[in-house]
Amino acid sequence: MKIIISIKKMYTFSQKMHLKGKRIGFVPTMGYLHAGHLSLIKKAREENDVVVVSIFVNPLQFGPKEDFKMYPRNLKRDIDLAQNAGTDVIFYPSTQQMYRKDFKTYVLVSDLSERLCGKFRPGHFKGVTTVVNKLFNVVQPDVAYFGRKDAQQAIIIKKMVQDLNLPLKIKVMPIVREKDGLAMSSRNVYLNPQQRKNASIIYTALKEAEKLVKEQVRDSLRISSEVKKIIAPKVDRIDYIEIVDLKNLLPVKIIKEPVLLAVAVWLGKCRLIDNTILKPH
Amino acid sequence: MKIIISIKKMYTFSQKMHLKGKRIGFVPTMGYLHAGHLSLIKKAREENDVVVVSIFVNPLQFGPKEDFKMYPRNLKRDIDLAQNAGTDVIFYPSTQQMYRKDFKTYVLVSDLSERLCGKFRPGHFKGVTTVVNKLFNVVQPDVAYFGRKDAQQAIIIKKMVQDLNLPLKIKVMPIVREKDGLAMSSRNVYLNPQQRKNASIIYTALKEAEKLVKEQVRDSLRISSEVKKIIAPKVDRIDYIEIVDLKNLLPVKIIKEPVLLAVAVWLGKCRLIDNTILKPH
Repeated sequence: MKIIISIKKMYTFSQKMHLKGKRIGFVPTMGYLHAGHLSLIKKAREENDVVVVSIFVNPLQFGPKEDFKMYPRNLKRDIDLAQNAGTDVIFYPSTQQMYRKDFKTYVLVSDLSERLCGKFRPGHFKGVTTVVNKLFNVVQPDVAYFGRKDAQQAIIIKKMVQDLNLPLKIKVMPIVREKDGLAMSSRNVYLNPQQRKNASIIYTALKEAEKLVKEQVRDSLRISSEVKKIIAPKVDRIDYIEIVDLKNLLPVKIIKEPVLLAVAVWLGKCRLIDNTILKPH
Repeated sequence: MKIIISIKKMYTFSQKMHLKGKRIGFVPTMGYLHAGHLSLIKKAREENDVVVVSIFVNPLQFGPKEDFKMYPRNLKRDIDLAQNAGTDVIFYPSTQQMYRKDFKTYVLVSDLSERLCGKFRPGHFKGVTTVVNKLFNVVQPDVAYFGRKDAQQAIIIKKMVQDLNLPLKIKVMPIVREKDGLAMSSRNVYLNPQQRKNASIIYTALKEAEKLVKEQVRDSLRISSEVKKIIAPKVDRIDYIEIVDLKNLLPVKIIKEPVLLAVAVWLGKCRLIDNTILKPH
């Protein structure tokens, strides 16, 4: 496995692969890899000739009061995990290289970036689309893999790729969960033992929502109230519990087609997101 | 010469060329080609294996009260001119294809887009960078050619390419002028005979500014006042006459290194821009 830290070298490597007719699968990450990331790498391994994993904690997607500095990092462990999952190249650029002093270009997917998490993390998705656009230009992948846990992110990136005619496919893979149902996240390390125990309530509530839909409940408000009732006692704060359209992320009142139930909550200093797709048929 | 109207076919063509190791030179235009465009196409012909010229009047870069509808168009003439200048492919996509109904992704170069013309045409450069980004993704050029007449545009596009790590080079070619010095522009057809005659005053004033700098004048205000004095009697309105830094486009008071003298004026319904680089040494 190669580790490439230079943007220019990464680009040259990808160019060379393309000239040989090789297909590049790409998994962009912020490192501190968990089983969710590894499932993306394994999928990329199955479907491509070359697998590139980027590790870059992107300052542009963190708000000034958010956890950029304390975000967990462990390159050595990431290298081992990525290699074992079948990575060919880790792309590990420096912040200085990615954002030069006079950096001033941004990619924004309007509307979608302001909904759900966008309301609570202004500028977050602009940071995500800008860095992902840059990474796509450098790595030149044929396919890029994202996790369904960040459902809004995946929807926004798909839209960016469509609108800007980026020459690649986006694949969104299922959420990987801990035994008790908590969605895998690098941020789960922020939880203390009690919070970690309480955090499984999110999955319990999502399952309850799915059950209600199976029992023919179609009223979003009734479902989200039920979810709130289950989650509220075990968390410190709820940012949102919303049932939204899968394309425009706008609230849906009556569930007629598959919709996204998305949740963001706080346990102490740890903000967790999770979601499920509610299917009425 | 090929005419390609489908985004997908354009992309496939470029991919095929790259796999053959061919170098693609690209000249993005809004059509109604003149000698300025043709100089770009000829340069692209000299330096590349394949020359692609796009013709697309981009609605996104026109304000609601601007001349999108009346902007001159003549595809038949453009095809002849482009072919004679050495074009291999004209890419002529439809607006519907470029901007689907739910289009919502924008590329913005902050700061630079708000200066000079940006003050008078809010949203203009956002429209330019968004469409040029799309065209680059579709055409996949190795080099793209722009005219120095749109100096701010060229500076902004270079910045976008640098910041987003787009894998291509931007080349900026000299302004091509009519015999009396008026910079070639598709919009010159808006001028009536009297306005057309008066319009040459812009070049006269730019030359005078160059002369002053040669005579060791370094005070920007003195130079721009002189330019204004020359131009004002022959035009209906002056949007700006500014002497700015070539990198950040901010006003320069004392000329110590090469700076941009940029001018935007109106003659009737025709807005003309022109510029020169003032070199103190």
